[in-house]
Amino acid sequence: MAITIRALAQALDAQGWGDLDLPVTGASEPGATGPVGPKGGVIALAMSPKYAETLKPGSMAILAQGMDPQAFGLKAAIFAPRPRLLMAGLTRAFDPGPDIAPGIHPTAIIDPSAQVGEGAAIGPFVVIGADVRIGSGARIGPHVSIGRGSRLGDDALIHAGARIAHGVTAGHRLIVQPGAVIGGDGFSFVTPEESGIEEIRRTLGTREGIKQQHWTRIHSLGGVEIGDDVEIGANATIDRGTIRATRVGNGTKIDNLVMLGHNVVVGDDCLLCSQVGIAGSSKVGNRVVLAGKVGVSDNIEIGDDVIAGGASKIFTRVPAGRVILGNPAVKMETQMEIQKAMRRLPRFAQQVAKLQETVTRLLEKG
Amino acid sequence: MAITIRALAQALDAQGWGDLDLPVTGASEPGATGPVGPKGGVIALAMSPKYAETLKPGSMAILAQGMDPQAFGLKAAIFAPRPRLLMAGLTRAFDPGPDIAPGIHPTAIIDPSAQVGEGAAIGPFVVIGADVRIGSGARIGPHVSIGRGSRLGDDALIHAGARIAHGVTAGHRLIVQPGAVIGGDGFSFVTPEESGIEEIRRTLGTREGIKQQHWTRIHSLGGVEIGDDVEIGANATIDRGTIRATRVGNGTKIDNLVMLGHNVVVGDDCLLCSQVGIAGSSKVGNRVVLAGKVGVSDNIEIGDDVIAGGASKIFTRVPAGRVILGNPAVKMETQMEIQKAMRRLPRFAQQVAKLQETVTRLLEKG
Amino acid sequence: MAITIRALAQALDAQGWGDLDLPVTGASEPGATGPVGPKGGVIALAMSPKYAETLKPGSMAILAQGMDPQAFGLKAAIFAPRPRLLMAGLTRAFDPGPDIAPGIHPTAIIDPSAQVGEGAAIGPFVVIGADVRIGSGARIGPHVSIGRGSRLGDDALIHAGARIAHGVTAGHRLIVQPGAVIGGDGFSFVTPEESGIEEIRRTLGTREGIKQQHWTRIHSLGGVEIGDDVEIGANATIDRGTIRATRVGNGTKIDNLVMLGHNVVVGDDCLLCSQVGIAGSSKVGNRVVLAGKVGVSDNIEIGDDVIAGGASKIFTRVPAGRVILGNPAVKMETQMEIQKAMRRLPRFAQQVAKLQETVTRLLEKG
Repeated sequence: MAITIRALAQALDAQGWGDLDLPVTGASEPGATGPVGPKGGVIALAMSPKYAETLKPGSMAILAQGMDPQAFGLKAAIFAPRPRLLMAGLTRAFDPGPDIAPGIHPTAIIDPSAQVGEGAAIGPFVVIGADVRIGSGARIGPHVSIGRGSRLGDDALIHAGARIAHGVTAGHRLIVQPGAVIGGDGFSFVTPEESGIEEIRRTLGTREGIKQQHWTRIHSLGGVEIGDDVEIGANATIDRGTIRATRVGNGTKIDNLVMLGHNVVVGDDCLLCSQVGIAGSSKVGNRVVLAGKVGVSDNIEIGDDVIAGGASKIFTRVPAGRVILGNPAVKMETQMEIQKAMRRLPRFAQQVAKLQETVTRLLEKG
Repeated sequence: MAITIRALAQALDAQGWGDLDLPVTGASEPGATGPVGPKGGVIALAMSPKYAETLKPGSMAILAQGMDPQAFGLKAAIFAPRPRLLMAGLTRAFDPGPDIAPGIHPTAIIDPSAQVGEGAAIGPFVVIGADVRIGSGARIGPHVSIGRGSRLGDDALIHAGARIAHGVTAGHRLIVQPGAVIGGDGFSFVTPEESGIEEIRRTLGTREGIKQQHWTRIHSLGGVEIGDDVEIGANATIDRGTIRATRVGNGTKIDNLVMLGHNVVVGDDCLLCSQVGIAGSSKVGNRVVLAGKVGVSDNIEIGDDVIAGGASKIFTRVPAGRVILGNPAVKMETQMEIQKAMRRLPRFAQQVAKLQETVTRLLEKG
Repeated sequence: MAITIRALAQALDAQGWGDLDLPVTGASEPGATGPVGPKGGVIALAMSPKYAETLKPGSMAILAQGMDPQAFGLKAAIFAPRPRLLMAGLTRAFDPGPDIAPGIHPTAIIDPSAQVGEGAAIGPFVVIGADVRIGSGARIGPHVSIGRGSRLGDDALIHAGARIAHGVTAGHRLIVQPGAVIGGDGFSFVTPEESGIEEIRRTLGTREGIKQQHWTRIHSLGGVEIGDDVEIGANATIDRGTIRATRVGNGTKIDNLVMLGHNVVVGDDCLLCSQVGIAGSSKVGNRVVLAGKVGVSDNIEIGDDVIAGGASKIFTRVPAGRVILGNPAVKMETQMEIQKAMRRLPRFAQQVAKLQETVTRLLEKG
């Protein structure tokens, strides 16, 4: 695949410079690119001065606004007004994507009652259950299974070995990475009598009546409802709801190995980074960002626009717009003060001991 | 599927009220239910006053003891003596489960030496190895693989894409959610000379002799032994033991993305919530509850009836019956005090600084 | 499989004792072994005095140097100079491994352009894409998929249901446990205007301009490059790079449920234990050990020979050779002091309060 500097600049809504007819076949780090001839080649990504240092004369590059292509001896350049945003368009242009051949592979098993929209590419050994509806333009990799009655919108991209159980509904442009599981049963159990967990919630930590207890499953009748433009990471798991559905809003992106418990509701345009876990029935607002390894307790609410730093553990309600950090999570600035104080703590203890001594001497003297 | 109020109340060991002949076809939140005609319909779950507020006159509901169905204008009701317990029976009654057709799918590959009990439902593309024994009533979803010599008891439910390696033994009523891996190799490696890890365990944190080290695998000859009534969550992993088996006791429930290392022993009736990790050779007693993201170091012992709060990190032995929290985990009440003190720490530092000043002045004056 | 004491001792580079012609058929704990006849049997592992207590007279055992086989009444023994190292050789000798039949299973789908080396054992329902190259001696379990253009060296062992995407390169002797995903797309998104995350990085935690934001994917054009002798655990995930490859060095071992983000570089001979997460573009040196549940922020660097204790959370650069612990991770000895001080904190607060009182009285008196 090749595209001219002119066409690429236009596609990226950016400005071109130099020989606009040079063909671009890919993008890479400056160190991995070199001078190009009339057949063009790979364009270097050099949007920061640090990267630009290794640019070679005679090559093509994407530069930040204000950088001088002549100073680097470039043949052609594209100026990026907002480098990371340009990266989105650029990488999309050159991504060949996974290799799922057009049409339905003969080994795929699709229930006669299922409906698959136009232009689908369905890979080997895929299993699609009864009454499933899949929109147009779907790409479904090998070994995917989709259970009874699930519905996906248009342009779904379901990678190899992803598991979509029965009763899952998703909007358009759903992306599911390999091995993700959508619609497993909720982790919801009950004991005939009060359990130890219920006891310590009532007593705030004291155990009196320890006894035998067997766990009985509460089944998950609810499904999972997913909005448009959602992405779900490799080996992430989203459990089905108990009575109502577990829900993920439009535009929310979920990273690898994330866990959403039963009945969880996540709003629109959130980022849930890798290894985040949200326990049953908690509610997360819109545009919330949870960094890697953040944990959210069950049955709590996180307001809109909250940002939680890496590995924060959230045990209580968080008001909208707050930036939090730590275990237990508190306001980021408070956490920073606590950490500073903690590091000083050993020295601080010595100081108090000395003070104590002085005061004792003062008392004796007095 | 429909069942009368009378039959449902009886199945739930609860008391019915009103038109006991009305058919119930499902259960939902009060907001998603409405008035029913003689053909019945969906019953509302309104076991707490908060949920009951949205009940519609003419509908059917499950209420807590002492609530007045007439005040809500209901046509029929069932009284729940212990609401969460009733949920178990109710949801079981209406759960259609995954759609695995009866019989053995023609694409399943079952070794001639394997024995599958009566009434099995085995899905497409399942692979069952040599000498496997599976009890009666098994339901095995698509793309599951079961390795040489593994044994499952009666009524196993193995969801899509679960991986059971060779040499795994499980009791009756095993449930494995999609993508779980039982019997992967243990993470056990050794260096020809003392490794950095061995060094810092010996020196308590000091590194003197840093050198090259290559890791050689210790193979896992032990399998995995699982009791009756165990459930294993989506994408959870349980490694095989080195010499003896990794073990999970009767009635223990394991959530999504949990990791049990090689040689781990977990007792009966435990709950291991999502993203819990237990490192190699540690031993967990009976009726232990580890909340989400709890970590347990290798080679330690956790007594019976321990409850560990969310994200606790357990580095040392925990006596039976203790309720713990934090990183490192300590008694929950101690942790609460520590957290309170930590939040006060910055203010506290100011207070000491002021005290220091005062004492200095006193000294100068004296 | 059986091997004489003589041959086993020789294979383990260790010294035999007693009846060197006795055949050994396996290895187990002393409690699970007993007296053997001329046909031999299972050898007991009794390298520490604790384990040796349960040795039965007439049995065979592996002992530590200096232990006396006659005192235990053994028929034969092998002396282990370094017990854990001997375990590696011993368990390798008796590991039957997974059951993948030689040859290519007729249900496997291998693209005509793919090249599979000599002696391959490829299981049922495997899917291998275009232009894939796999070295000699590969063993590939059921339901594995390998995407377009990926290359594996000799003697690869890919367990059931592992997912290797397109553009992944690995050296010799790669081991991938079940369900691992190599080459999923990176979690890299951008908003048209400054996002909340960029804002708080700039303002260090303050949010002023909260607004709508939709996330646009930055595609992952880079692949994954893996060295020789690497092992990847069950359900672990390694994302592909954005422009250059995500990289794992020679001899590095990765445990279950570990996550490596896009562009991450991990050096040689590292151990990454279960549930470790390394965020995008971070760089880990050689011989680094990250214990279970360690988290590493994005875009930071960890020097050679660093060891991080369980559940450490690493937010900033770590110099080579350092041993760290805690959240946030600091030097292990500092962390130990902080923890000691924290446990004393409530008592300490009382002490300061009392001191305050005394000083107030002194002041009044003065």
